[in-house]
Amino acid sequence: MKALVYDGVETLGFRDVADAVAGTDDHLIRVDAVGICGSDMHAYLGHDARRPAPLILGHEAAGTIQGGPRDGTRVTVNPLVTCGTCAACRSGRENLCPTRQIISMPPREGAFAQFITMPDSNLVTVPDGVSAAKASLAEPLAVSWHAARLALEALHPSMEKRALVIGGGAIGLAAALALRAMGIEDVTIAEPNDARRAFLTDRCGQRTTAEVADSYPLIIDAVGYGATRATASAQALPGGVIAHVGLGEDTGGLDIRRMTLQEITFIGTYTYTAQDFRDTAAAIFDGRLGPLDWTETRPLSDGFAAFQDLRAGRVAAPKIILDPWA
Amino acid sequence: MKALVYDGVETLGFRDVADAVAGTDDHLIRVDAVGICGSDMHAYLGHDARRPAPLILGHEAAGTIQGGPRDGTRVTVNPLVTCGTCAACRSGRENLCPTRQIISMPPREGAFAQFITMPDSNLVTVPDGVSAAKASLAEPLAVSWHAARLALEALHPSMEKRALVIGGGAIGLAAALALRAMGIEDVTIAEPNDARRAFLTDRCGQRTTAEVADSYPLIIDAVGYGATRATASAQALPGGVIAHVGLGEDTGGLDIRRMTLQEITFIGTYTYTAQDFRDTAAAIFDGRLGPLDWTETRPLSDGFAAFQDLRAGRVAAPKIILDPWA
Repeated sequence: MKALVYDGVETLGFRDVADAVAGTDDHLIRVDAVGICGSDMHAYLGHDARRPAPLILGHEAAGTIQGGPRDGTRVTVNPLVTCGTCAACRSGRENLCPTRQIISMPPREGAFAQFITMPDSNLVTVPDGVSAAKASLAEPLAVSWHAARLALEALHPSMEKRALVIGGGAIGLAAALALRAMGIEDVTIAEPNDARRAFLTDRCGQRTTAEVADSYPLIIDAVGYGATRATASAQALPGGVIAHVGLGEDTGGLDIRRMTLQEITFIGTYTYTAQDFRDTAAAIFDGRLGPLDWTETRPLSDGFAAFQDLRAGRVAAPKIILDPWA
Repeated sequence: MKALVYDGVETLGFRDVADAVAGTDDHLIRVDAVGICGSDMHAYLGHDARRPAPLILGHEAAGTIQGGPRDGTRVTVNPLVTCGTCAACRSGRENLCPTRQIISMPPREGAFAQFITMPDSNLVTVPDGVSAAKASLAEPLAVSWHAARLALEALHPSMEKRALVIGGGAIGLAAALALRAMGIEDVTIAEPNDARRAFLTDRCGQRTTAEVADSYPLIIDAVGYGATRATASAQALPGGVIAHVGLGEDTGGLDIRRMTLQEITFIGTYTYTAQDFRDTAAAIFDGRLGPLDWTETRPLSDGFAAFQDLRAGRVAAPKIILDPWA
């Protein structure tokens, strides 16, 4: 099969690799659409020790089951593979499973390929009329859905239902969409990049700001750098909540004196539970997350150029989706 | 009346000051016992811009109402004065009131004096048989009670009921006592100082450790320095909770990458709600917080020497209480 292989820092090759072969507990899945994530870019730049070259990246996949009793079923793929038996898995917090694996990280190859294999429990059936591109958004949208859910659960019921999302990439935009789907009508996205902000406003109908001047009861940091955490901890209202998604910088930024004196809660969030993934897919399918027409699809064979364009800031769309069969 | 006045960095004077005079909405209270807090030490060292000299410090007071219909009633004093009408106050989060004041911070003088004045709603009646020294612990114990309550409310119900408290001063010890009163039997206090650790073990019956080697679902950082936050963020179990009380250093220490990948929640906590204060007083009065016999009482007139001894590390007891009438 063909795959886009990460061969080393800022180097990707589209070439033949060994065919994916399903084990007895897995389905073989033809990949119809697979998105490029910020963490793929992170690995491509050589910044993720957990993803050493050579490796097939990509973990935002939708496709079609090949063979077996469910042959031909269109599915979107939860890429987190967890044990199902530990305390975290049994309590519905599969993302905290100590033996969790994700495709695109050894020992599991990723989905920038024509085929992958996955257990049945990781698959959510996609209804007719929902495109593979849209279905492949379940994974990144679930990340934001999870962060929004945890933030809302932590928010004191007496506080205003009003939120700021820092960062207007796919995770930030998806966080704004998830918050709205959960009933928070008043959401602002802070995005300093003019082209990206214009896209969010004009194409996605979002309220945006270049700089954060107001204060908010709920803030989602969808970037994860010291500077964005500094903004979050300065602009959270007393008793407010910050949910933190990104892995930009490992430390720093938080004004802990203010967070202590003003009782601000900071929640680290990572991926999603299996239920979050299913809930997100359902919200995509029934339209609660909007038209989701802000993606750009390119052939997987042009994936290297797509990474170069993203790296150079030449892409306005929050998400590029690759098609392994174009 | 006599008072201990903070006159400048590391300088306290015991002398006559203008008598406290109750307004129409206040009681005059004879101070029978007043504890020395870490924040008093912070101010004494010139590290708190909110407490400029000259100023009467002290906010952990118990005493006796003088005059009026409640003359002679023994009370313990909630030193936080809040508006009662804002959204925070109305939702029972008085500690987040934007106009909150605390005695010992301008415009309110503190309780290192023979008398103070306070509104009736700030007073909790002390039963016969409970000493003023013990009653004066309501304030510091409420700080820890509040942190323990918020941490337990944030802890996922599936997680083990096991906790670490970092720091064996009054706030740390009180946090351990509060956690036990709330049903967490397995609590360890990390305290590097040998004399203090011996006191906690031998006099207070606490489980202690000099260094933190294990991991915990719930951690209370009762110190608030970069180093203690580094320990907390390294040793919290995946999905765990850190509650943070201290104001040692304004920034730094947290491993935010780990907190994100392992979904660790960090809660800044400050003082207590009015209900927390009442709940803590009730727990003191009915013995749920133990014998509380680990304090040392000295005359207020010797207060300067007490600060010097605390500063020099010559005090093993977690709390010195001053008596303005000795």
